[in-house]
Amino acid sequence: MKKDSAIIVLSGGMDSGVLLADYVSKVDVVAALFFYYGSKHNDKEMACAEVLATKYGVELKKISLPFINELFNSSLLTGSDLEIPEGHYEEENMKSTVVPFRNGIMLAIAAGYAESVEADMLLIGSHAGDHAIYPDCRPEFNKAFADAVRLGTYNGVRIEAPYSGISKMEIGRIGYQVDFPFEKSWTCYKGLDIHCGKCGSCVERKEALNVDGHVDPTVYSN
Amino acid sequence: MKKDSAIIVLSGGMDSGVLLADYVSKVDVVAALFFYYGSKHNDKEMACAEVLATKYGVELKKISLPFINELFNSSLLTGSDLEIPEGHYEEENMKSTVVPFRNGIMLAIAAGYAESVEADMLLIGSHAGDHAIYPDCRPEFNKAFADAVRLGTYNGVRIEAPYSGISKMEIGRIGYQVDFPFEKSWTCYKGLDIHCGKCGSCVERKEALNVDGHVDPTVYSN
Repeated sequence: MKKDSAIIVLSGGMDSGVLLADYVSKVDVVAALFFYYGSKHNDKEMACAEVLATKYGVELKKISLPFINELFNSSLLTGSDLEIPEGHYEEENMKSTVVPFRNGIMLAIAAGYAESVEADMLLIGSHAGDHAIYPDCRPEFNKAFADAVRLGTYNGVRIEAPYSGISKMEIGRIGYQVDFPFEKSWTCYKGLDIHCGKCGSCVERKEALNVDGHVDPTVYSN
Repeated sequence: MKKDSAIIVLSGGMDSGVLLADYVSKVDVVAALFFYYGSKHNDKEMACAEVLATKYGVELKKISLPFINELFNSSLLTGSDLEIPEGHYEEENMKSTVVPFRNGIMLAIAAGYAESVEADMLLIGSHAGDHAIYPDCRPEFNKAFADAVRLGTYNGVRIEAPYSGISKMEIGRIGYQVDFPFEKSWTCYKGLDIHCGKCGSCVERKEALNVDGHVDPTVYSN
């Protein structure tokens, strides 16, 4: 039976990386899309996305979105004077890291690309832990957006987010099962030489990679 | 009573131009967004968008989307070898002018910008005549996309498409009522010095601007 063809949105982080490792044999991955939108950790992410795409034999297409840094406000962006907050991901102060409708923008572009190359679906790595502070990662958003993409494309492109109901810890567990090279993925919002270990995304990564007594291979600065 | 604040997507065509003329006093138009995505008529459209934004006293923000020409296929794009088809807009051969999910992409970016500047809503000029060949102009798409934007933004940004139920001819009628300078709008897909008068979009423009015995001010080459 012919496999479904898919475009995967690959950020260089562990969620979409594990998703690629998990699905590369289940579907025909036509291409991975990486978005360069001017976040402080974008260079680190891009280097990881390149390594992961090569490892799993998938063509990587990089898409630059300079208007985000020019027009949008978020502490995550290089154009912002705001510091990346430290602490747990779900806390109120992490809201400064939200890039308005970032996922909606990336998904819309990926949907157009999928339609253009006649791929059946988009694969995205959003998971349950994202929901607290990112409105455009929540299941009700994903459902409405998937409806819009299906209705707005000739081929009825599908959006599949297999991890939308599970935690990052569960993604860690899947990653260990499929021998995902976690040290080749980037999470830290600060984008320094090594993971800071203190920002919300690092705190969450540590929890996920220590799952079931595994040893987190990440080098942290703290 | 405080007016709603709005971002308008301004293409330089007559639909969004009339919408701006019609709504500039009804809402507080914070900014107009113009998208430069590499269509053959984009330079012509941009010049018109600049003139119209100035005329109606609205700040114009231009957003460049070079990845569309690099990655997408459509006869509308400068990167395509395909000719723009002639004939009526609703005919099958006009489908080559579809830029996959173009409206979805523009709306997603506009939604992020609206959230970033805390505008209440997006105003878009899509109308009933677009529906036949553009899936991402149809009412069911607009509704699903509007749901996604409402759910995916903190402020619950609204999308309003006041002309989605009316024909281009009706937009022509509204334009004449509000003294819209039609000669300062661009429609022709070919993007030559003057409107060709033969492509699907010119055919439709002519019908609209001859409404009720009005004299179409456009200079056509045929």
